[in-house]
Amino acid sequence: MEKIIGINPVREALKINGKIEKVEIFKGLKKETISEILNLAEKRNIKIDYIQKREENSQGVIAYVNAYNYYVEEGEFLEKIIKKDKSTLLILDGVQDARNLGALLRSAEAFGVDGIIIPERKSVKINEAVIKTSTGAIEYVDIVKVENISKFIEKIKKLEFWIYGAEANEAKLYYEEKYPSKTCLVLGSEGFGIRKKVKNNCDIMLKIPMLGKVNSLNVSVAGGILLSEISKNRRG
Amino acid sequence: MEKIIGINPVREALKINGKIEKVEIFKGLKKETISEILNLAEKRNIKIDYIQKREENSQGVIAYVNAYNYYVEEGEFLEKIIKKDKSTLLILDGVQDARNLGALLRSAEAFGVDGIIIPERKSVKINEAVIKTSTGAIEYVDIVKVENISKFIEKIKKLEFWIYGAEANEAKLYYEEKYPSKTCLVLGSEGFGIRKKVKNNCDIMLKIPMLGKVNSLNVSVAGGILLSEISKNRRG
Repeated sequence: MEKIIGINPVREALKINGKIEKVEIFKGLKKETISEILNLAEKRNIKIDYIQKREENSQGVIAYVNAYNYYVEEGEFLEKIIKKDKSTLLILDGVQDARNLGALLRSAEAFGVDGIIIPERKSVKINEAVIKTSTGAIEYVDIVKVENISKFIEKIKKLEFWIYGAEANEAKLYYEEKYPSKTCLVLGSEGFGIRKKVKNNCDIMLKIPMLGKVNSLNVSVAGGILLSEISKNRRG
Repeated sequence: MEKIIGINPVREALKINGKIEKVEIFKGLKKETISEILNLAEKRNIKIDYIQKREENSQGVIAYVNAYNYYVEEGEFLEKIIKKDKSTLLILDGVQDARNLGALLRSAEAFGVDGIIIPERKSVKINEAVIKTSTGAIEYVDIVKVENISKFIEKIKKLEFWIYGAEANEAKLYYEEKYPSKTCLVLGSEGFGIRKKVKNNCDIMLKIPMLGKVNSLNVSVAGGILLSEISKNRRG
């Protein structure tokens, strides 16, 4: 059984997740803090247990989920995307860290990304840290595991997506690009960036100009900056 | 004794930190991976111990630092800032999470922030997680602990800084603002945002428009987006 912990994640999960078996709530919490959770659980007839101990980092609220499956099947996902005139996708080529994935899910949801694509191998698994860091966003963004990122890119190129990779050197300034209505952003792993083969499949490389000596950003921060710009561009 | 762990953080620390006592390196590492670390340590006559076990998350490289003090005294910091025509400051009004602070340090360094100001109380302490997540950036950005954020804001207003707060509602779009040459950005805590009293001291509130249902960003992601825009604005 998987656990979802924290007030916001549990509240969001209660809105759409059909597999929640029960919710545990720490006795010491004020009713007004959790009134929405109580209402949602009651409406959906989900059992609430009041517990004596507050589990660390849980804010006193835990939902237990049966047989959680966050992943959308690739074919099913492509069928959804094919019908859209406008779409933003995010490929994570080997992000390793649970909290980075969680923060990227949160940004993806905030900036209207339709799906996050991750390679089956060499990616972080979806665990409690991912779910908690996403603060509920994981419920609204499709996550697609694919065997081969390059092949996936070939498929979406046929659907007229433009593929943008993020890297530090010799690339176009991210705010000088006019993003097309079908845009796919590729981010690499924390240590090594985008793999060469995947990079070769990108149409345009983007760069976030930096002033400092360390000259690199956390992957979830870089992703947030680029997705915010793509989203702005769409509206403008 | 504090530890700095990871290849990049240790390398950056060796360049400027005068208080490193020794470096431990896992025997199994390839020499070319750590050649710069070996050179720097040799130049500065710092002892290297080769160890049998690779500590988790350390990439096999650990530096031991004596009596580390990351903080710059407020008066000293203001004297530095007073001389500058252009300056960006970042106030973190109660950021609680070590990794968020680390990522914010990294972004601050990348986007030319002169100093990060945190309140003495209710802020995360600088620990190994902060140092590691900052990937060396902590060596280049002044961190100033102040007793009272509102009073600090009053002082820098007299130095002609404009104070921008970040919040979700009823605020100006962050990319429509022309940032002045002395800009101070204020970010709030993960759970509660900017405290009301501090918000009242801000000149302009900024908003990052979002599309989703969760409608919030990780504080380090939001900070990255705003600092990138301020930095771009400066160049343009």
